[in-house]
Amino acid sequence: MKSVYEECIKACRECLEACNHCFDKCLMEEDAGMMAECIRLDRECAEMCGFALQAMTRNSPYAEDICQLCAKVCEACGNECSLHKHDHCQLCAESCFACAEACRKIAS
Amino acid sequence: MKSVYEECIKACRECLEACNHCFDKCLMEEDAGMMAECIRLDRECAEMCGFALQAMTRNSPYAEDICQLCAKVCEACGNECSLHKHDHCQLCAESCFACAEACRKIAS
Amino acid sequence: MKSVYEECIKACRECLEACNHCFDKCLMEEDAGMMAECIRLDRECAEMCGFALQAMTRNSPYAEDICQLCAKVCEACGNECSLHKHDHCQLCAESCFACAEACRKIAS
Amino acid sequence: MKSVYEECIKACRECLEACNHCFDKCLMEEDAGMMAECIRLDRECAEMCGFALQAMTRNSPYAEDICQLCAKVCEACGNECSLHKHDHCQLCAESCFACAEACRKIAS
Repeated sequence: MKSVYEECIKACRECLEACNHCFDKCLMEEDAGMMAECIRLDRECAEMCGFALQAMTRNSPYAEDICQLCAKVCEACGNECSLHKHDHCQLCAESCFACAEACRKIAS
Repeated sequence: MKSVYEECIKACRECLEACNHCFDKCLMEEDAGMMAECIRLDRECAEMCGFALQAMTRNSPYAEDICQLCAKVCEACGNECSLHKHDHCQLCAESCFACAEACRKIAS
Repeated sequence: MKSVYEECIKACRECLEACNHCFDKCLMEEDAGMMAECIRLDRECAEMCGFALQAMTRNSPYAEDICQLCAKVCEACGNECSLHKHDHCQLCAESCFACAEACRKIAS
Repeated sequence: MKSVYEECIKACRECLEACNHCFDKCLMEEDAGMMAECIRLDRECAEMCGFALQAMTRNSPYAEDICQLCAKVCEACGNECSLHKHDHCQLCAESCFACAEACRKIAS
């Protein structure tokens, strides 16, 4: 089941996990109100990565287009997360930037 | 395209819309930190209703099982939303309870 | 809960329903083997419309981008469906073209 | 980010990949018409596993319920796939049964 998407599939599932973990943890922070934009983008990015994951694994004719959009959402979520000092935000930013990079490779 | 699911499909898409609207608005409230549980359940319920909507419209062999679970999630989201005075929470609670009822009819 | 997306939300949910109905019916046709591309694109389009529906109703910062991509997928699914004489294919093509048009309005 | 769901998350993403791969390959088989039920259940199971994956990684209060349903869908898809001699069907059946087992552990 080797595919040209292999690296990007891995990046998307790691980013999906990191975003959902960050979403869950942000909602439990004492300063949850300050994390609103992070919570919003975590959901955006987790759903986008899940969508890309499904598309690549079903060999969608639109996988490249979807990855191009995914790169944009990952970049934005990474930028937001990197502003916050919580470990889950910093880890999420890292996964987001890695996924954006992997998605750009597929899209180009 | 009339189907036995028609009423429930309508309830699920209205509930999905109300939950996503409530999610968006909760994140913009000054007391967003107080709305954490509402934000979490709004996402749970919107994704669950979207999943049920896809299942019913594709005539899934698991539509009944999925609706049974959807009723449980809608009920919980409705209970949480009904605790908050914001209009979007009150409207969301109403849609959640209506959707729970429609889902229970399908499941039984 | 009036929104600039109202018309497009309606078009996406109708297209989602038509594509899933067509997917279900194609799998039951005697010539299901001839319908492979239609079955594939029906799934692509139903999932894409569902994704756009969730994005618009949660006021996603990426709703326009997602609708732009959705227009492309709808157009392709409509083109494929219009080649087949089954009623469910013809109805699906109609919903796809209408949704593509509504998505383009949002994207522009 | 270690979690009680770790094994089940892995099983769900492997099953999602196997089901989507099988879906794609079935649509390209000369006997695609004979594979209609396999194609249908591959989609059911891939979407169900994706839904469970999102739920577990966001620490959903409904993860157990969702895994219980996922086990049922995986079992059915595995049973169907195991009837077909294609490699992608046999591999898919294996992933489905493994995922059903992992989901049952979470649900119980």
